[in-house]
Amino acid sequence: MRKHNFNAGPSVLPEIALENTAKAVLELNGIGMSILEISHRSKEFESILNETITLFKELLQIPDDYSVLFLGGGASLQFAMVPYNLLNKKAAYLNSGSWASKAIKEAKFFGEVIEVASSKESNYTYIPKNYTIPDDVDYFHFTTNNTIFGTQLRKDFDLKIPVVADMSSDILSRPIDVSKYSLIYGGAQKNIGPAGATFVIIKNEILGKVQRPIPSILNYQTHIENNSLYNTPPVISIYACLQTLKWVKSIGGIQAIYKMNLEKSQILYDEIDRNKLFKGTVTVPEDRSMMNVCYILQDEFKDLENEFLDLAKSKGIIGIKGHRSVGGFRASLYNALSKQSVVTLVEAMKEFEKTKLK
Amino acid sequence: MRKHNFNAGPSVLPEIALENTAKAVLELNGIGMSILEISHRSKEFESILNETITLFKELLQIPDDYSVLFLGGGASLQFAMVPYNLLNKKAAYLNSGSWASKAIKEAKFFGEVIEVASSKESNYTYIPKNYTIPDDVDYFHFTTNNTIFGTQLRKDFDLKIPVVADMSSDILSRPIDVSKYSLIYGGAQKNIGPAGATFVIIKNEILGKVQRPIPSILNYQTHIENNSLYNTPPVISIYACLQTLKWVKSIGGIQAIYKMNLEKSQILYDEIDRNKLFKGTVTVPEDRSMMNVCYILQDEFKDLENEFLDLAKSKGIIGIKGHRSVGGFRASLYNALSKQSVVTLVEAMKEFEKTKLK
Repeated sequence: MRKHNFNAGPSVLPEIALENTAKAVLELNGIGMSILEISHRSKEFESILNETITLFKELLQIPDDYSVLFLGGGASLQFAMVPYNLLNKKAAYLNSGSWASKAIKEAKFFGEVIEVASSKESNYTYIPKNYTIPDDVDYFHFTTNNTIFGTQLRKDFDLKIPVVADMSSDILSRPIDVSKYSLIYGGAQKNIGPAGATFVIIKNEILGKVQRPIPSILNYQTHIENNSLYNTPPVISIYACLQTLKWVKSIGGIQAIYKMNLEKSQILYDEIDRNKLFKGTVTVPEDRSMMNVCYILQDEFKDLENEFLDLAKSKGIIGIKGHRSVGGFRASLYNALSKQSVVTLVEAMKEFEKTKLK
Repeated sequence: MRKHNFNAGPSVLPEIALENTAKAVLELNGIGMSILEISHRSKEFESILNETITLFKELLQIPDDYSVLFLGGGASLQFAMVPYNLLNKKAAYLNSGSWASKAIKEAKFFGEVIEVASSKESNYTYIPKNYTIPDDVDYFHFTTNNTIFGTQLRKDFDLKIPVVADMSSDILSRPIDVSKYSLIYGGAQKNIGPAGATFVIIKNEILGKVQRPIPSILNYQTHIENNSLYNTPPVISIYACLQTLKWVKSIGGIQAIYKMNLEKSQILYDEIDRNKLFKGTVTVPEDRSMMNVCYILQDEFKDLENEFLDLAKSKGIIGIKGHRSVGGFRASLYNALSKQSVVTLVEAMKEFEKTKLK
């Protein structure tokens, strides 16, 4: 029985992607070898990689003057690669959560970081607003979705300076205007595929402007020139990403996914607001994330946390324990999570309320 | 029909590892989720990761004062991480092939590199000998097996300075004395598992001696402190590594594998030396690699390359076209390649000789 998988990432993937990947692990397209055994220089993998990049570009309508990379190392490696490649003197960062804060920490190894605003003092329960982004910085960096705190900034900044975004946890979940960004990166392990692959979307003209020498593997130019094949890429993870991208396309692309994601998150937020036991942790409604829904028990019921987790578990619901820095519950509603899973969670919340308020 | 897969890496893996991984992609141990969908913080993955590290330590008899990491990013990232973490002023490198040469190039971003010897002038057809390693360098780096040129240095250096080795293509293929090394690293995609995972074996005391600040993700200390879970690791690749390590143990461990590898390579080298059409490219017999056997056609037959490749293909043999910098043929005989595959290749060589010399 498939679980209702609300994991924050790695997370639920489309069943068809799992089936196709499992088949390819046994044997890829009848070629007598597994996807785990083919050369990354083979025509088979070349075709897989190119199809992945092409489909990703198509789904996100990435303009022609951008390169798309699929690399190893994770978004955390990008926290260092971004400033390594782009930060000459100073960069502006918005501190909207733990990941933004980690990105800031790494950027400081490479130059001056101006934190334009922060919601740290309120444990990141909202997205900072009304700040000024200096126009003499090398770039402005922000995190579109804060997985841990359940906030989301669904805005394509229109700035004269380069905009860099960590979209690890909401890429492909909603339409974005890529042309407004100079660089977008993220780990694949939420909406794109399994752990092990990292995507980078780069406007080519942004590169080559820093003075420092950059080791080859950390230089975006190396990977662009080699079409992500400078070194051996994470073959199986990229293959599983391709299967997931195909599924996104098959159900109607980003617009269709977006509609489904809006509906799923609405169902859950409505229940949180209605249910007398629970309350959301994000203090500004417009900042609520469509991807990660964070909520806690009302003060008078706060000892019932484990009891609700046990009830949820009995319904096949897993992965809803909140991050330790927020507590309570976090339900991650990534693309591949079905509406039925959300409805099951909502029913459990209703049932729990009935038991406790009778 | 399984191919006789002589790919240089990613390469052939044990069938049992493929079967177990395929099962886990559909569903991991009956938990209602795929290995692609579980959290890297789950008890399931914690157990997979710890079992992988423990088994790796057991197979290689890694002493207790060493840490073992399984990371993303590939050995090419290690070319930069090694000097980032260990090179204060100067390091000594042995230039025995393309990968050694790439490691040297990256080390130069971080300090002075003394190339103690090089066989580049002869296109790396032998392993340099009779050189002096200065005793005032931060470490000595060498590549144990040169995948492209088919040479191998099966010697555990006994030096007073730290020894660092890239063992990407021969780790687990033969006994080594880990205590002689301060750091060993490599991509998994030959003898350990599929592409996407990278192993690092570090003697803990070697760290913390460089002056430069090191970004968190590039700092070995970060990964040691977090038991390879500082950021999301390549979950599926590590799972497949575990299946391969279990297979190595099941057939008798390193000593058994070593015996099989000696026999397989002997069968092929004997045929190369006997067959009138072919000759090995490595000029010093003791430097011949057990893992990658490079050979070409004798001058008078050199136009027959494609014809032999076609014959081999008709027998289900793939991956034997030589690297462009050597030409001819390269048969990679990694752990999971069966003796039967080697015998099939040898039979094809005999058959080809008969056709051409009659």
